[in-house]
Amino acid sequence: MTSKKTVKGESSKIIYENATKTITGGVSRNTIYRKPYPFYVESAKGSYVTDIDGTVRTDFANNMASLIHGHAHPEIVSAVTEQIQKGTAYTMGTEAEVRHAELLVSRSPNFEKIRFMNSGTEAVMTMIKASRAYTGKPMIAKAEGAYHGTYDYAEISQTASPDKWGDIDRPNKVPVVQGTPQGAMNDVIIFPYNDIARTIRLLDENADKIACVILDLVSHRVGLFPANEEYVKAVYNWTRKNNTLFVLDEVVTFRVNYGGAQHDYPVVPDLTALGKIIGGGFPIGAVTGKSEIMEVLDPTKKVLRHPHSGTFSANPVSMTAGRVAMELYDDKAVKDLNALTMTARKQIEEVIKLADVPVTLTGAGSMFRFHFRENAPTTYRETYQNAQERELITEFLDYLFCKEDLIMINTLACMFATSMVQKDVDKLTDGVFNAFKLLKPKFDNL
Amino acid sequence: MTSKKTVKGESSKIIYENATKTITGGVSRNTIYRKPYPFYVESAKGSYVTDIDGTVRTDFANNMASLIHGHAHPEIVSAVTEQIQKGTAYTMGTEAEVRHAELLVSRSPNFEKIRFMNSGTEAVMTMIKASRAYTGKPMIAKAEGAYHGTYDYAEISQTASPDKWGDIDRPNKVPVVQGTPQGAMNDVIIFPYNDIARTIRLLDENADKIACVILDLVSHRVGLFPANEEYVKAVYNWTRKNNTLFVLDEVVTFRVNYGGAQHDYPVVPDLTALGKIIGGGFPIGAVTGKSEIMEVLDPTKKVLRHPHSGTFSANPVSMTAGRVAMELYDDKAVKDLNALTMTARKQIEEVIKLADVPVTLTGAGSMFRFHFRENAPTTYRETYQNAQERELITEFLDYLFCKEDLIMINTLACMFATSMVQKDVDKLTDGVFNAFKLLKPKFDNL
Repeated sequence: MTSKKTVKGESSKIIYENATKTITGGVSRNTIYRKPYPFYVESAKGSYVTDIDGTVRTDFANNMASLIHGHAHPEIVSAVTEQIQKGTAYTMGTEAEVRHAELLVSRSPNFEKIRFMNSGTEAVMTMIKASRAYTGKPMIAKAEGAYHGTYDYAEISQTASPDKWGDIDRPNKVPVVQGTPQGAMNDVIIFPYNDIARTIRLLDENADKIACVILDLVSHRVGLFPANEEYVKAVYNWTRKNNTLFVLDEVVTFRVNYGGAQHDYPVVPDLTALGKIIGGGFPIGAVTGKSEIMEVLDPTKKVLRHPHSGTFSANPVSMTAGRVAMELYDDKAVKDLNALTMTARKQIEEVIKLADVPVTLTGAGSMFRFHFRENAPTTYRETYQNAQERELITEFLDYLFCKEDLIMINTLACMFATSMVQKDVDKLTDGVFNAFKLLKPKFDNL
Repeated sequence: MTSKKTVKGESSKIIYENATKTITGGVSRNTIYRKPYPFYVESAKGSYVTDIDGTVRTDFANNMASLIHGHAHPEIVSAVTEQIQKGTAYTMGTEAEVRHAELLVSRSPNFEKIRFMNSGTEAVMTMIKASRAYTGKPMIAKAEGAYHGTYDYAEISQTASPDKWGDIDRPNKVPVVQGTPQGAMNDVIIFPYNDIARTIRLLDENADKIACVILDLVSHRVGLFPANEEYVKAVYNWTRKNNTLFVLDEVVTFRVNYGGAQHDYPVVPDLTALGKIIGGGFPIGAVTGKSEIMEVLDPTKKVLRHPHSGTFSANPVSMTAGRVAMELYDDKAVKDLNALTMTARKQIEEVIKLADVPVTLTGAGSMFRFHFRENAPTTYRETYQNAQERELITEFLDYLFCKEDLIMINTLACMFATSMVQKDVDKLTDGVFNAFKLLKPKFDNL
């Protein structure tokens, strides 16, 4: 163990230097890396994270939106502590799985049946494989810029940049990982989010080959703005006419409403991928949706179309933590959290005006994201941050992290938790206001 | 909660009936399903699992080989309980990750650098993607019958059956999941395990396109017999001549030796996938291997060839539980466990002779598997269980589970844990002997 130092970040620097000796790049998650080194946590409670040097920060990242009640919620800690005494995984069933399944399925009429996995990546992969098994078709269609985990098919064009993204009429298929097989790219259609005419035309071109169209209704990487209702309806209607599944990635967005972001749209998804908050802080993923489609996963059927297991799938720790977290995240908690987040947005919009900086916010429910531009983006390409903007973002985030003790996601997104109170919102508002004032000359030069 | 019943399985039956209302097929892991319903766990400690009706069973499955110390080991419970008080996941680093990385990397000179994921499936997927990124080649080669998780490319031909597997000279590519894209199948070469001439010829045919050859040195589904050293050397040497990575799946087999099953072979794998026991009972996966190759994952490089994150990757609970488990699984613990397992094998081989049944055992280290045939299989196709054999296996497993209170993996594999003592071995031996005597007429008819 590293002894406590008084200089901010001193111990983290030492730990990171050690980390690079055994861990490639020093981290297993690039998202936590920051220059010149990431900071290391000693402990966390509610909205506050204490680093290894004793600095306490207010956490608006909540482990990439996965902690809906902040850190170490006492009821979750208590339930998990009890479960761990009785074991964490067996080659048999547990009631914990059934109880969590019942709770989740009760939250939306669109969730008829469910199965659990270990991550959002596994959930999206299973959802895509199930779509192929059900339809017998090989392709998927996804939005440029949308993040759906690291399964090849799901990640294509997630990080498309201007030098590679090509004509908006027909966005290029841009691999995230070098060496992504052409065979995988051939089975993916990339469409521009929120663009009805272009999306429908691209879908039409491969109408008989598309197993599913996957959408995130408030895609974080596309820009964290809600999809237009008319757009969602147009895509949904297209899938109804073309024997294609309409599937949603609600790994991030389930927090937006008691029944997920889909509650606000007049569509009935065939399948939905869940993850993050439904694990109560422990690894989880899930696929839920129509019984008839979920049946491809049913091992009791004569023909099993999609065998699926997983050593840690539905382990009783993730199931117990997740159930307690979701019980606490009832309809009132959702509404209260969304209201507090709206207060934060309004306060921040006020200081944007006061500071007179070209900044705007997008978001939904308990999430919002800053954009360093006068007008809110409505497409992925508008959202894209150029090098000059990236530099200012880094400076902004570093200032907030090091001087204001505020943690934000590196896309400039804030993900709220029920542990937050008005005092935290004020701290965020003040910190952001200070950053705007300090960096105003650079904002004016954007 | 279901109230305790006195009839064996009565409460499990009720829970399962409820489960089917919300969970497709009633389970998230087909591996725990059994007819007419799976049994549900109340608690577990060491080698013993107590079901919801109070029946205590001795557990030789250990959650599909993932619990090297059995259930709820006090040191793991204590360390995890402490960690949970401090939070379970942050958008920052933890020393827990660095400490676990250091320990694992120290166990083999082949492990230069490491990164963590959430499951064996994610580990194999990352290993394959990293192989493509490093070599720029699209294909992978894998053994017929070998299980490497549920990533399409990795799972092809895992469940190949006689009606589909085709000529042994060129095994068919048999999808596990219906609707697996032809594009994915085109990028996979299936070879017969342990067959030098055929494997090399099949690799030669696509020599310039293969990113990696993936092997499990004691493949559970192929038959749980160690790969021949000459075979492994031949494949390894082929990869050296053809600019192809030689990568190992040690998700199951790492338990075999202090440095994994690879310790016993004169080869240096480029990458190794880990999982199961290194999580101490919590979800985990890892990729480790040569620094130069692992570097494709390094976010500090100017060109990041393989971006990788994961919301729960390297979470401090899995890292802490895993580190404590691996500290306890030191060289002496490995040797003692392997010796106890060898004692069990010898005792069982004696009762096989006494009962005069056509049964044989294969295995390595702390694992072995029963085969209902006179001679041990040496290939996947020899291992394959026909319908009559499957029926007897089910009867055998049901008898052990219901009458002898013994839990075994449904392939007839036993995965030992350090919690086991001679008394447990004797119980297994006696139970198996009773099963042989009871079912002898059916064995004789095989």
